Amino acid sequence: MAEPNEALGEFALIDRIVERLGDAAARDILVPPGDDAAAWTTEAGVSVATVDVLVEGNHFRADTMSRGDLGWRAMAANVSDIAAMGATPEFAFIGLVLPPHEPLESIDRLVDGMAEACRAMGVRVGGGDIVRGDRLTISVTITGRTASSDALLRRDSARVGDRVAVSGHLGAAAAGLALIEAGRGGGDGAGAPLLLAHRRPMPRVALGRAAAEAGVRCGMDVSDGLLQDLGHIAERSNVGIEVQTSKIPLHPAAVAELGAQAALDLALGGGEDFELAMTAPSAILEAVGHTEPRLTSIGVVVEDHPGEAWALHDDGTRYVPAVSGWDQMRAGAS
Amino acid sequence: MAEPNEALGEFALIDRIVERLGDAAARDILVPPGDDAAAWTTEAGVSVATVDVLVEGNHFRADTMSRGDLGWRAMAANVSDIAAMGATPEFAFIGLVLPPHEPLESIDRLVDGMAEACRAMGVRVGGGDIVRGDRLTISVTITGRTASSDALLRRDSARVGDRVAVSGHLGAAAAGLALIEAGRGGGDGAGAPLLLAHRRPMPRVALGRAAAEAGVRCGMDVSDGLLQDLGHIAERSNVGIEVQTSKIPLHPAAVAELGAQAALDLALGGGEDFELAMTAPSAILEAVGHTEPRLTSIGVVVEDHPGEAWALHDDGTRYVPAVSGWDQMRAGAS
Repeated sequence: MAEPNEALGEFALIDRIVERLGDAAARDILVPPGDDAAAWTTEAGVSVATVDVLVEGNHFRADTMSRGDLGWRAMAANVSDIAAMGATPEFAFIGLVLPPHEPLESIDRLVDGMAEACRAMGVRVGGGDIVRGDRLTISVTITGRTASSDALLRRDSARVGDRVAVSGHLGAAAAGLALIEAGRGGGDGAGAPLLLAHRRPMPRVALGRAAAEAGVRCGMDVSDGLLQDLGHIAERSNVGIEVQTSKIPLHPAAVAELGAQAALDLALGGGEDFELAMTAPSAILEAVGHTEPRLTSIGVVVEDHPGEAWALHDDGTRYVPAVSGWDQMRAGAS
Repeated sequence: MAEPNEALGEFALIDRIVERLGDAAARDILVPPGDDAAAWTTEAGVSVATVDVLVEGNHFRADTMSRGDLGWRAMAANVSDIAAMGATPEFAFIGLVLPPHEPLESIDRLVDGMAEACRAMGVRVGGGDIVRGDRLTISVTITGRTASSDALLRRDSARVGDRVAVSGHLGAAAAGLALIEAGRGGGDGAGAPLLLAHRRPMPRVALGRAAAEAGVRCGMDVSDGLLQDLGHIAERSNVGIEVQTSKIPLHPAAVAELGAQAALDLALGGGEDFELAMTAPSAILEAVGHTEPRLTSIGVVVEDHPGEAWALHDDGTRYVPAVSGWDQMRAGAS
């Protein structure tokens, strides 16, 4: 009996595929598969590129997200991977699988959302492919550039003693989704900024670039959930990462609407905020601090428990959030 | 009642989307959306990129194509778009939608086929994304380079008086598929080269580069069917293209296995050969002629019927093939 692939999680399956590709995987490039984006040197600097796929029913649902917001988010998720390298996005290449009965008007809305995101994020569509299929599926590849190979934010360069910082508020996007699922997606109440964080997240391109220029060398975007994402840095850098729950920048509206406990859980495990997490000596992080959105120092890189990231209360007890992070291969309907 | 998108063909839908993107579409780059690949200048030369999406049941079927061959073809189709610009492919970014029950072993075969193609075509995988979905879907973006913006094969640069030439044999891949569908896919008979053309097509990277270097400025790959593909050149260049049926290079095995008439129909309308079609003054085409696979001169660029490509018998009568070319949005199951 053949073994179905669902037994493996996303990351195990990626490892298996990269292993199997052998020398067909570009392991010797500057930043090989496994970081937010691949990066390679050219005569003019460094090129970066990243791909993400969204499938209806798995990554988004028509009842919680409009087609316009979907178009925006498809671009935002990829631009965020470029921002997380400290690079500048340039061109998008879009592969679209369209069900035959998807109304033309809804495709128009989707394209409008993509166009609005492109304008807001300084990206332009360079090409695409449209094919027929059962489920709306959006594959976006974004290419970008940065001037120097020394100025990249990588996952494997956290050093013991570094401070850990994050931008903006965490858990806001997940709180927005929670409101929508609770039938409170109307939008003009106190939850409005949370709904906006979910529907129109803004990747931190300027901040990523400023961090790289200031000398930060380790960073990624918060897309799967803070602890899971910091776990990737811990694993690739072979360090431990300890964050303090009292320092996590919660969105005031999330605390007001859902309570402090739920807001913290969503901040640690909720994902899709597209804020940046980075580690560096404090002096360097302070030098980045003038760029919006502001950085908040939330923890420290340690020698203990290499490969792990965890959260501590002020009394020293470990806190395990109720939400555990996002695994593409195990999540959602299929 | 909302209008479903299926009323529009692939090209009409692309036009609508590019129109709607407005200034979010990169119209001012060297070669904007609508050619085989997008191309833009950098400080170090010209970057090119292209994306293609394959959906199970629509673009391939498990009963006519093994997972290994599928992996190869997914890469080949994209590399061919880069070759069709006269550029050199570099990195591939792969988005994979995997049904949960797709056996691990079949994913291994798929990856093996991709790796073999990468090695054969000089491409390396720079990154990817794997997600869950109902239908196996493969989205491949390939980036590449060329030294000079003057040396690109475009669709909009055919000139009246140019000769039209194609590489290799046309219709071989479609003839291979016809053999498989007739239950003759065993592989070691006279049809073997046709099966190979279908299962392991080899994009013409060296030829594309040689053509660009020799001064050819107009070309594309034969992927949807010769007449349809030449029609794109005719439309974008605002010229007519006339080819002679007697000059079309048919594969001897296709003629032997299926008869001359069917072989000609498949050559004119069958597609997926991934040979190159180009137009240029004869002296330039002759200068390319030493690169394998050899070019065959099949027609001429004329002023009449701008936007159209057609085939003539030697007696001057127009020939309309029984196979009409491939429209991604109208083809196949869904």
